[in-house]
Amino acid sequence: MNAEGGAGSGLPVALDAAGGDFGALPNVEGAVAAARTGLKVLLVGDRVKLHAELGKYPGSASLPLEIVEAGDVIGMDDHASDVRGRRDASINVANRLVKEGRASAVVSMGHSGASMASSLLTLGRLKGVDRPAILTHLPSRNGFITMLDVGANADVKPAYLAQWAGLASTYLKVVEDRQNPSVGLLSIGEEDHKGNALTLEVHALLREAARRGDLNFHGNVEGRDIFQGTTDIVVTDGFTGNIALKLAEGEAKVLFGWVRDALGTSLLSKLGGLLVRSSLRGVAARLDPSTYGASLLIGVNGLSYIGHGSADARAVKNALLRADRADQTRLIARLKEGLETAAPVGTD
Amino acid sequence: MNAEGGAGSGLPVALDAAGGDFGALPNVEGAVAAARTGLKVLLVGDRVKLHAELGKYPGSASLPLEIVEAGDVIGMDDHASDVRGRRDASINVANRLVKEGRASAVVSMGHSGASMASSLLTLGRLKGVDRPAILTHLPSRNGFITMLDVGANADVKPAYLAQWAGLASTYLKVVEDRQNPSVGLLSIGEEDHKGNALTLEVHALLREAARRGDLNFHGNVEGRDIFQGTTDIVVTDGFTGNIALKLAEGEAKVLFGWVRDALGTSLLSKLGGLLVRSSLRGVAARLDPSTYGASLLIGVNGLSYIGHGSADARAVKNALLRADRADQTRLIARLKEGLETAAPVGTD
Repeated sequence: MNAEGGAGSGLPVALDAAGGDFGALPNVEGAVAAARTGLKVLLVGDRVKLHAELGKYPGSASLPLEIVEAGDVIGMDDHASDVRGRRDASINVANRLVKEGRASAVVSMGHSGASMASSLLTLGRLKGVDRPAILTHLPSRNGFITMLDVGANADVKPAYLAQWAGLASTYLKVVEDRQNPSVGLLSIGEEDHKGNALTLEVHALLREAARRGDLNFHGNVEGRDIFQGTTDIVVTDGFTGNIALKLAEGEAKVLFGWVRDALGTSLLSKLGGLLVRSSLRGVAARLDPSTYGASLLIGVNGLSYIGHGSADARAVKNALLRADRADQTRLIARLKEGLETAAPVGTD
Repeated sequence: MNAEGGAGSGLPVALDAAGGDFGALPNVEGAVAAARTGLKVLLVGDRVKLHAELGKYPGSASLPLEIVEAGDVIGMDDHASDVRGRRDASINVANRLVKEGRASAVVSMGHSGASMASSLLTLGRLKGVDRPAILTHLPSRNGFITMLDVGANADVKPAYLAQWAGLASTYLKVVEDRQNPSVGLLSIGEEDHKGNALTLEVHALLREAARRGDLNFHGNVEGRDIFQGTTDIVVTDGFTGNIALKLAEGEAKVLFGWVRDALGTSLLSKLGGLLVRSSLRGVAARLDPSTYGASLLIGVNGLSYIGHGSADARAVKNALLRADRADQTRLIARLKEGLETAAPVGTD
């Protein structure tokens, strides 16, 4: 327990304030909004620029915000591997703050590949995890589902997915208070024998883990089960998961565009549209990626959140608050405990 | 040119009238509706049952409908491989009608795996095609996109996808009059080097085919591009494609459920909902799988359409009409011409 009364580290969250399509602007605005709720944030980037940006917010000087200098930034067109040689890049500096125990978590809206590489290189992997995965949430009929991997690993081995299923189960227990969360394996038929060569092997590993009591395996789920919310967790490889995530986001956008257009077709429907606008806005909010802010890179030895390059201030704020909440729950320590308790699955 | 003035065979379409979750009912109703537009249909199944079912439709005796006896049916819980030993199963009889030149096409809402297996075994493959794929349509911002494979092949080789890209290109030119249709390879980033081991190899094959002028390769597309309609065709393996299709259908269903619920939350939104109902119905219709009716098993030596087990009469009717339209365009002959003209890609 720290002085604040929570179980977390009490440390500030490090924000890669230079990263993302729009640079410092949404990062600083989001950090200011998070700081106004009491959260301590370290803004990592060019000190002069960040100071100037902060100056736009009256009263920001009294907020729990601190600038940490980083003279370089990995651009959205750079290569992920550039993080290796560029020690002063904001994402590397931010990850080192976590590694050195000066920050509880790192949040970045910058180059996703670079952010993953930087966290993996700087923080290392949890013992028993071959590859970290990106864990995210999608809205579903029952609230939300948790899906991983949504893009860190295009090519995988069966053991990776089995490890991720265990990590995500611990995550949901710890961070979202879900008792005995169910795991579905994304496949092309509910029956055990339906799938491709990969999922058939993963299926066997998950059955075995369930038999040992390490997790609650529901069996295969199909594409339609994601929005149905058939299981708490959907585990898949990073290729399929990334396509599923982007399809889901893209479809929601296009569908709501059509609904908006449909509401503008006649005077009657325009009037109706005015009357239903706020109801529809509630639905749209459920589908807005900014609600979650960023996705967790799970499996590294530290809290690392990675968001869209196009993230707005609201996404930045929500990501910072989520990162702090995960720290409050001692997520990393709990993941380690989980990995020690469960039987290891094909680790290096 | 046949007597009807079209370029097609003038033959009837064979319907597996016993297949599907609801057996003869929606099949017969759909066939009657199609026959009323002038289409000739062979209803394949139990003669007594089908005759009784047909009797419910006044005037059906004068419609161009004929019953072809098939004493057996592959149930939805049977194994796909059962088609091998069950010669009299309706799907086998229907496929033989095509093989023997007595029907222009086969349409089935029965067990998908069995329908594929039966068409493959009975009709054989087109020369230059290693594996047939399921080709379907999804609505997009610009109308619709054509996606394949959506489920026939869970595990693939790179050459399969390159062949499918060529088949789908010919299909769109012939059936939908699209000039120079563009092909996108479903992957996890637009850049050429983004993807998994499979897509990187397919990418190289498609670049090569485009260089030779065999098709119009756009490059990689992402999950969001499906509904955006970035390309005319999206090519992917049957595992990813099946998950994408079922996710897209499931998401539309859940989202429209939410919109409906949102419209019922208050008196004001209820009133608005009444006013916008018909506009929203137009949007929902674009997303209804019944609009297309069934998907084409492309790559077999004959026209074979496979639909949802839960298909309703409207889906059956639309599938029959689509099958006949494909016959009118001499699709199979044109696919063969296309395969002869283009450089072969890794065929058996």
